[in-house]
Amino acid sequence: MTEQKSPHDLPDASGLTIGILGGTGDQGKGLALRFAMAGHEVIIGSRKADRAQEAADDLRSVVAGLPVRGAENAAAATAADIVIIAVPWEGHRPTLESLRPELAGKIVVDCVNPLGFEKGKGAFALPVEEGSAAEQAAAVLTDSRVVAAFHHVSAKLLLDPSVESMDLDVLVLGNDREATDLVQALAGRIPGMRGIYGGRLHNAHQVEAFTANLISINRRYKAHAGLRVTDV
Amino acid sequence: MTEQKSPHDLPDASGLTIGILGGTGDQGKGLALRFAMAGHEVIIGSRKADRAQEAADDLRSVVAGLPVRGAENAAAATAADIVIIAVPWEGHRPTLESLRPELAGKIVVDCVNPLGFEKGKGAFALPVEEGSAAEQAAAVLTDSRVVAAFHHVSAKLLLDPSVESMDLDVLVLGNDREATDLVQALAGRIPGMRGIYGGRLHNAHQVEAFTANLISINRRYKAHAGLRVTDV
Repeated sequence: MTEQKSPHDLPDASGLTIGILGGTGDQGKGLALRFAMAGHEVIIGSRKADRAQEAADDLRSVVAGLPVRGAENAAAATAADIVIIAVPWEGHRPTLESLRPELAGKIVVDCVNPLGFEKGKGAFALPVEEGSAAEQAAAVLTDSRVVAAFHHVSAKLLLDPSVESMDLDVLVLGNDREATDLVQALAGRIPGMRGIYGGRLHNAHQVEAFTANLISINRRYKAHAGLRVTDV
Repeated sequence: MTEQKSPHDLPDASGLTIGILGGTGDQGKGLALRFAMAGHEVIIGSRKADRAQEAADDLRSVVAGLPVRGAENAAAATAADIVIIAVPWEGHRPTLESLRPELAGKIVVDCVNPLGFEKGKGAFALPVEEGSAAEQAAAVLTDSRVVAAFHHVSAKLLLDPSVESMDLDVLVLGNDREATDLVQALAGRIPGMRGIYGGRLHNAHQVEAFTANLISINRRYKAHAGLRVTDV
């Protein structure tokens, strides 16, 4: 029964400083807001420090006194205990390649969804040579501990401070049990969210790609859909 | 708002006769049991009529008087209003190719998950030339209306008559709105299940592949996990 782990047996993730690269986009900014609201020190990273600081100032205008600041990506990575990658797919590989030293030894949480859009077809999964964005991150960041998570969070709900609780489970994938446990615990820091182990990195592709289905679901039902895992 | 459709606005699926090809396997047999329990006439299809009849007899020994019988695949397809494909992935393409005339004009519901298993790696998605099992079905069955659904149902729970209600949403994918609506309604005939539109067929791959993640989740949590879609 050593494999069994209920969501309640997770390590303590409070006190972690979180860097969010690509934190000026909606998904990154939304996560920054929620982690800062949960009391984490958050550093929004961007290619340009002033754009990162602008995003942080935006969030501090939503909730005064939030522990969030902006920095250039490299500085954000260096200062953080755990780093979330929320850059657009186009910038994924070059961003990671440029930050290998700063990300070495750290837990890196990839939440990038490689998706395309076409009129009449909607969203669809793009092919990724390595299999998935997360596997690409693992291939580039050989000295980091790569975990995949936070693919399905609705940026709109995250960024709406009137939404007190997020109604979804965050699927956390990775090959390093200690790292996935910590990221599961981190997901649980946001009210309503639960971090659920979702498999190893070789099964990350379909979790990333499923975001295209959520976009279809949202369109059909005028919803901000998330997933819950039953019987867990 | 014409796009909006709540799960309550669906057509009436009661009275449909259901053929289940590959219905001697656990997934097909489990669906046969549940649809028959819901009052549908069910025909289990198999390559050999006597194996199909055996499976039907099995189910009638679980619940006496169930409206389920067995037949050769072609006869099951012909007699049914709607046909579920639950064959093993290896037999998927040849089975469909051999039944093109019998399946013409019908709604064909593909619930096949193309998965591989390796020691130490667990379950993983197999590459499919057409993109997914459902797209392969659509490519072979050009005169049928192909829908993808029922990928994530737990055969074990379906086959356990002490389980009164299934705690999961069935993602229903397809390019034909009338067909997906009917299959959503059909999913709703099983207590606890809800049929939720999940996108077009080009997004079926990740839904099929996600079954590998559910296998990992089940292993980690000693569960029979399913998915629920929130905010719908």
